[in-house]
Amino acid sequence: MLPVQLIRKKRDGGALDDAEIRAFIAGVTDGSLPDYQQAAMLMAVFMRGLDARELATWADAMTRSGDVLDLSRIARPKIDKHSTGGVGDKISIPLAPAVAACGVAVPMVSGRGLGHTGGTLDKLESIPGFRVDLSVDRFTELVDTLGVCLIGQTARIAPADKKLYALRDVTATVESLPLIASSIMSKKLAEGIDGLVIDCKVGRGAFMKTIDKARELCELMRTIGKSAGKRVTCVLTDMDTPIGRTIGNALEIRESIEVLRGGGPTDTRELTHVLGAEMLMLAGVERDFETARARIEKVLGDGSALEVFRKLVAAQGGDPRVCDSPASVLPKAKHRDELALPAGRVVAIDSEALGIAALILGAGRRTKEDAIDPGAGLVVDAYVGEVIEAGAAPQVLLHHSLAPEDGRVAEARAMIERAFVIEPDRAPAPPTRTSRILEVIR
Amino acid sequence: MLPVQLIRKKRDGGALDDAEIRAFIAGVTDGSLPDYQQAAMLMAVFMRGLDARELATWADAMTRSGDVLDLSRIARPKIDKHSTGGVGDKISIPLAPAVAACGVAVPMVSGRGLGHTGGTLDKLESIPGFRVDLSVDRFTELVDTLGVCLIGQTARIAPADKKLYALRDVTATVESLPLIASSIMSKKLAEGIDGLVIDCKVGRGAFMKTIDKARELCELMRTIGKSAGKRVTCVLTDMDTPIGRTIGNALEIRESIEVLRGGGPTDTRELTHVLGAEMLMLAGVERDFETARARIEKVLGDGSALEVFRKLVAAQGGDPRVCDSPASVLPKAKHRDELALPAGRVVAIDSEALGIAALILGAGRRTKEDAIDPGAGLVVDAYVGEVIEAGAAPQVLLHHSLAPEDGRVAEARAMIERAFVIEPDRAPAPPTRTSRILEVIR
Repeated sequence: MLPVQLIRKKRDGGALDDAEIRAFIAGVTDGSLPDYQQAAMLMAVFMRGLDARELATWADAMTRSGDVLDLSRIARPKIDKHSTGGVGDKISIPLAPAVAACGVAVPMVSGRGLGHTGGTLDKLESIPGFRVDLSVDRFTELVDTLGVCLIGQTARIAPADKKLYALRDVTATVESLPLIASSIMSKKLAEGIDGLVIDCKVGRGAFMKTIDKARELCELMRTIGKSAGKRVTCVLTDMDTPIGRTIGNALEIRESIEVLRGGGPTDTRELTHVLGAEMLMLAGVERDFETARARIEKVLGDGSALEVFRKLVAAQGGDPRVCDSPASVLPKAKHRDELALPAGRVVAIDSEALGIAALILGAGRRTKEDAIDPGAGLVVDAYVGEVIEAGAAPQVLLHHSLAPEDGRVAEARAMIERAFVIEPDRAPAPPTRTSRILEVIR
Repeated sequence: MLPVQLIRKKRDGGALDDAEIRAFIAGVTDGSLPDYQQAAMLMAVFMRGLDARELATWADAMTRSGDVLDLSRIARPKIDKHSTGGVGDKISIPLAPAVAACGVAVPMVSGRGLGHTGGTLDKLESIPGFRVDLSVDRFTELVDTLGVCLIGQTARIAPADKKLYALRDVTATVESLPLIASSIMSKKLAEGIDGLVIDCKVGRGAFMKTIDKARELCELMRTIGKSAGKRVTCVLTDMDTPIGRTIGNALEIRESIEVLRGGGPTDTRELTHVLGAEMLMLAGVERDFETARARIEKVLGDGSALEVFRKLVAAQGGDPRVCDSPASVLPKAKHRDELALPAGRVVAIDSEALGIAALILGAGRRTKEDAIDPGAGLVVDAYVGEVIEAGAAPQVLLHHSLAPEDGRVAEARAMIERAFVIEPDRAPAPPTRTSRILEVIR
């Protein structure tokens, strides 16, 4: 069948058969299909969707478009976690060593930050010397010996996804649930894992604005996983406010190390505990959620998770002293500006705006080519529901290396001020959410 | 606004504002917009449509993407005719000189054949020496002095349409009524005309399979015309069977000259009379349809239309003796094979299949690069409703220059045989359609 006939079939709402989907993805992968035909097909899929069988085949074809890691020599269960992306989301960093400390192998292939959300790789690279571009052999070896390794997506993992993702970005076909689901799953299935816990973010600061959309996306990812013979647990978590107290690479490493030492902000800890517990259950090393959660808390409290992280940092070329003296090992921005919020009750925090403010200060990138200031970012000390007294200590610290007169500093300050919705403290306090966990789909 | 934002807006069913549409068409014209973004936008327009204002702006932007002919020095009303394309459709050739003979200027920019339908330019070029690549100045001069000139679309007429048309062809976005309407109208509006008669073909051999679809397309073209201050009359005509008795370039010129001499097959004559009458009415030189029709019949009967055609052929470099001895001047194919249909009643003729059979014999082209045998084609002597007696003279003549053992001859014969649906002559004769005119929208 000619490409134009495939596009026409999907355009008219038909279901593509398996051979047609594989031919399309093969044409994307080897570049024989012109990008205008890829673009037309993406828009047709955006409009018409993919049914369960098409979705599974589409994701499988993308997975097999490149190398699929063979981790079969590692006897332990191999479980990964994926987050759909949130502001201040540093959970992978304490989570992976904690789960590894419980005897589960965590082969984690992570991404970089773009736009208002950061990336695990950028955070790890703020540790002096830390390298994320290890070979597949070294990756496999570290997963085997340490139980964990964190690397970047190589060019040989799901190359079809890489090409389609870049094209979706410029053709307004990003926000398609089947395309999102197959993009996420194709990369994860290429890791050679047995199971996957997905942290699906919901809310103002997330890609999925409503819980219904999030549930829909999760069902699609579970469909793909099931078809590939992998177990997938989805945890829907609140992303109306930033996670933890820090946004920015080195700042988030500091918060991660606090968690690895049994401390850290309540919500960062909770996410690590719950996602870790679900990974242990998927791996089959625990059967009861509370027991699994207690086990994660234990390895965070007794230093064994930190010990795994220390070995991981050393093995990946980083300075392991970061575990003991993060403040002296991690890069610091030149300036620390204070920002005081007006008095009143904090009723909402726009995490996307805070993510962009951090980006403006140097913590993120607008385009893939932008450089990052590893020390830049925000420390936020205000919560939804909290009452700010007049004359209280400043609630936000801006870490940056920009000249004081640089317009970007004022731009970031204005963005932060707008991000906090503060109302006069007259009405009774709104109910404060005590947990970020909205729903678990096992 | 970024291109990706425009695509998203249309994708989500929004209406693009005028500046956005003009920016998109400008990006197509100067090539600054990548073709994958053009493709995504075309698919979004295919799915979401264009409202009346968007449509008018889209067509206007395409018209203005290149040169708009200035025929203002010609005082007479300037009226053109466009056909959406049919098998055996040679109507422009007798029509344009006949209307010019009535004092109306006919500046006609025509196309070439592709697939199962022929093109007026290819037909004219079968007259030895005839040239369709005149300069705009010479074109204007001939329209002024003779009242008529027939040329091909130059690279400078509606270049945005040329680019989008090529892209639509390979991205399954051809069959979109707003895109079809704006493509047709942008080219015609660039001719500097005052009014346009559109012959919208309906039926099995046409792009519009139903009269409802044809009406919808006509309304869109009228909307565009109205917005540009041009009068547009649409004539919906039956295309269930081929027009006239000939399919193929030189063969159709012969039939056209028969009509210019006041003869020719009934349906070819009827279409010439009716479309000509509508052109005279649009021009304002006649107010009553029957009077206008009689005037066209008169110029065809008294030789004055043929006289205009003779001057036109000479002015465009062709051999004017074609008007007197077409058989000796026009190129002929080497072979004339007979094909006899089985006895019975002809209940249907697949004109698309006959068009393809003629193409296979050398009369048409599958791709733009294919060469044409000007003498090749079919002469068909069978009508729907007619009863074919056993042992009657052959009903189809195949004109071709292929070797008798060339597989294409057998392929064309098989196609022709399949094109005629013949049933035993037992039932009473089905009602025969006596006119091809289905509806006129003035």
